[in-house]
Amino acid sequence: MKENVTVIKVGGKIVEEKNSLDNLLDRFAAIPGHKVLIHGGGRSATAMAGRLGIESRMVNGRRITDEAMLQVVTMVYGGLVNKNIVAGLQARGANALGLTGADCNIIKAHKRPAGEVDYGFVGDVDHADGEMLAKLIHEGIVPVIAPLTHDGKGNLLNTNADTMAAETAKALARHYNVTLTYCFELPGVMRNPEDAASVIPTITRESYSTLLADGTISGGMIPKMDNAFNAIENGVAKVIITQADAIDGTQGTQIIA
Amino acid sequence: MKENVTVIKVGGKIVEEKNSLDNLLDRFAAIPGHKVLIHGGGRSATAMAGRLGIESRMVNGRRITDEAMLQVVTMVYGGLVNKNIVAGLQARGANALGLTGADCNIIKAHKRPAGEVDYGFVGDVDHADGEMLAKLIHEGIVPVIAPLTHDGKGNLLNTNADTMAAETAKALARHYNVTLTYCFELPGVMRNPEDAASVIPTITRESYSTLLADGTISGGMIPKMDNAFNAIENGVAKVIITQADAIDGTQGTQIIA
Repeated sequence: MKENVTVIKVGGKIVEEKNSLDNLLDRFAAIPGHKVLIHGGGRSATAMAGRLGIESRMVNGRRITDEAMLQVVTMVYGGLVNKNIVAGLQARGANALGLTGADCNIIKAHKRPAGEVDYGFVGDVDHADGEMLAKLIHEGIVPVIAPLTHDGKGNLLNTNADTMAAETAKALARHYNVTLTYCFELPGVMRNPEDAASVIPTITRESYSTLLADGTISGGMIPKMDNAFNAIENGVAKVIITQADAIDGTQGTQIIA
Repeated sequence: MKENVTVIKVGGKIVEEKNSLDNLLDRFAAIPGHKVLIHGGGRSATAMAGRLGIESRMVNGRRITDEAMLQVVTMVYGGLVNKNIVAGLQARGANALGLTGADCNIIKAHKRPAGEVDYGFVGDVDHADGEMLAKLIHEGIVPVIAPLTHDGKGNLLNTNADTMAAETAKALARHYNVTLTYCFELPGVMRNPEDAASVIPTITRESYSTLLADGTISGGMIPKMDNAFNAIENGVAKVIITQADAIDGTQGTQIIA
């Protein structure tokens, strides 16, 4: 029987404020067994870019990453945010290891070709190395993954953290029984964001179509849902969308294959 | 018989200019067998601090690291410099893994107590985990170590890269036959910096005393020499001081126990 691995993706806001980060690290460190954390850092990148006089340009919620912005996200995601999480987890007894996709070649990508929008140094994932990740996890290591990949030609690429979480979970699914939890600001996918009781407990492909058609799910939630379905339809055992104070996976919206 | 590991320490200047970095990565990737790279990044940190309006204050060649400067070195050493080296080595077929001392808890330190000078968030190394490093190396991984440690309480600490190289080499010496090479701007320790032919081929404790007394070795070379002797007197097989285009270890000054 496969062992369990819990893969948690947390958005920028949670890891960028000291209190919410401390809470998250407490909860994450307390998860029993093997685990992986994938984090964002967009707000910190925007703030740091601003301090350096570099303008943040977003299209459809995605960051245009020219060379100057690539430097910023490399520093902020790969350095500032990642290493502070690693040090915080070490203090809580979790043997964290900070990784970008370039480290141990765990996630390789290609630069997204310029279409209507040229996103610049942005990566679309080609391959996540589940075997290498499994080796590290088997050693008791807790991978902490920053949203950066590489193209194998020496270039780092800014990459969507939700996508990296889905690809990581899929790659690990060959070796482990994987639960993937997307944490965001709300307690789950909601019929009415104002009503905490309106969390939709499960979403299937069929109900997803309806929720898209009636506008319940829209905007930035769509790529998140697509990543969630991509994971559950490719070997991941359980996919949950919830908020960071429920990373034990008992609340929120479960995505059903 | 122990296998060989080559530990190379390169200073900031070499890794901070694209041409010299490319040359270094070519040469480093070509070293046969197991290897470890430890890098600096001080010039980049000073430049980035400057862009952020943060003043760099140095005492005895060491950086005063207040909270704002700790953020800068975490970004620059752990992110910008480290991850670009990792991506560059991956492009050259070396399975690089970027590490700070916090990652896998490989190098633990304590905050240096304030004496005549309060260096701030600066770490003095307590322990390097040779066993964990050996496990990674055994998997074919090439550790690339940034000059940051942690205190196990959640704090990252700015740490001298020469010291980290000596501690890493010593910790690995229980598992491997280790050659440690310090690369800097000159072809070796020189009697006369103007005369390339004046490289001193070997230095012992005895000749070191003489070279200190007559002023041949002074200033920033003294802590480098102390790190070199610390390594060679604690199990490291060979310690060389040379320049980056001679990292095959056939030139330069050899430190003799």
